[in-house]
Amino acid sequence: MQKLLLVKTFSRESLYDITREIAAVVASSGVHSGLVNIYVRGATAAIMIQENWDDSVQTDVVHLLRKLIPKGVWLHDQQDGNGDAHLKAGLVGPQETVPVIQGKMALSTWQNIFLCEFDGPRDQREIVVTVMSLIST
Amino acid sequence: MQKLLLVKTFSRESLYDITREIAAVVASSGVHSGLVNIYVRGATAAIMIQENWDDSVQTDVVHLLRKLIPKGVWLHDQQDGNGDAHLKAGLVGPQETVPVIQGKMALSTWQNIFLCEFDGPRDQREIVVTVMSLIST
Amino acid sequence: MQKLLLVKTFSRESLYDITREIAAVVASSGVHSGLVNIYVRGATAAIMIQENWDDSVQTDVVHLLRKLIPKGVWLHDQQDGNGDAHLKAGLVGPQETVPVIQGKMALSTWQNIFLCEFDGPRDQREIVVTVMSLIST
Repeated sequence: MQKLLLVKTFSRESLYDITREIAAVVASSGVHSGLVNIYVRGATAAIMIQENWDDSVQTDVVHLLRKLIPKGVWLHDQQDGNGDAHLKAGLVGPQETVPVIQGKMALSTWQNIFLCEFDGPRDQREIVVTVMSLIST
Repeated sequence: MQKLLLVKTFSRESLYDITREIAAVVASSGVHSGLVNIYVRGATAAIMIQENWDDSVQTDVVHLLRKLIPKGVWLHDQQDGNGDAHLKAGLVGPQETVPVIQGKMALSTWQNIFLCEFDGPRDQREIVVTVMSLIST
Repeated sequence: MQKLLLVKTFSRESLYDITREIAAVVASSGVHSGLVNIYVRGATAAIMIQENWDDSVQTDVVHLLRKLIPKGVWLHDQQDGNGDAHLKAGLVGPQETVPVIQGKMALSTWQNIFLCEFDGPRDQREIVVTVMSLIST
C-alpha cells in the first residue's frame, strides 16, 4: 500500500510529529508483518526519528543543525539563499524504514517520526508512505 | 522473517559489532535475494555501518560525535540529562537496509553493522531484524 | 530485481549523480509500485539524496564534511590515513530507500541520487540496486 500525506509547515526550520498519520496508514494497509518506508519529496526537508516527550529535543535539533551548518556561507547561497537547508536535508536524509510487527510500527516508547522542515514555511510537503508485507497478500 | 535481537551495553557511549548476529538471522530466513532491515528500538541508540579492522574507527566515531554534539548544553538536559544522546541518535539514525544476494548480506570486506549506544549502559537494547524476499515464497 | 552498478571516481572527495542509472534499473525491473534500495559497498563511500541544479551543493557537501570531520586527527589515521573518510561515510550512510510509484522513483524535482566518494580515486565503486514490488509478480 502506498499513500501520499500532505503536511503544511509554518516556519523556516521546525520539526512536525507525523507518527499518528503514519500509524493510520499502516493500520489501513492491513499489513501484519513487514516494513513501512516514510519518504519526503523535497531536497530541503528530511525525516528523523526522535523523542517527543515535549518539544525540547525538537528545538535542540534545530539549534544543533544551525550551529553545525550556519546560514549564508555556502556556494549555493548565491542561487537561492538556502544552501544550509540543502546540507541539513542531505545529512539527516529524506527517509526512514521502520518494521511493522503485528500490524503496528515497532517504535519504542520514545520514538516518534518527525518531518524536518529546513526551508519553510511551505503550503504542503509531500510524504510518501509505503507499507510492504513480508507475506504477499 | 522477523526476529528480535537483544544486546547488552556496558558504557555510556560505545559501538557494538552485531554483524554476525544479523548474518545468522539472514541465513536462517532462507531468503536468497532481497533486503534486510536492521532497526534499533530506542531514541538514544542508532545503527551505523562502519569498518571493524580494529576498534580505532569505533572510538573515533564516539570522539567525533562528542565534539560535534557536546554534553550538557541542550534544552532537553533539564529533563533527563541526555540531550546529546538523543541528538546523536537522531543524526546517525535508528536503521539501515542492506541488500541480500545469494543468501548473504552484500556488505563489502570492511563494512560491519554496529549498534551505537549513546546513553548506556543498558541491560538490553532491542534490535528488530526484518528480512524480505524479492520473490515471495 | 537486483543489479550491480559500477562507478569510477576521479578524486579523493566528490559527489557523482547516479540518478539516471538507478532510474534505468527501475524501468527495466517492470515494478509498478514498491521501493528501490540503493546501497554502496564500501566503508569510505556513501549515498546522499541532494539537489543537482548545478554543482554548488555538491561542492558545499564536500566542504561541510571537511570542516566537521577534518583529515589527519583520528586514531584510525595511524593505520591507513583515511579516518576522516570512514567517519564521513558512517555519518552520511551507505544507503537510501526510495518509493517507486507508477514505475518511476518518487523523487521531487530537485532530488537526485549521489554516490559520495570520500577516499578516491577508485577504479570502481560497487552499488547494489534492489527493486521490490508491493504486489508480487
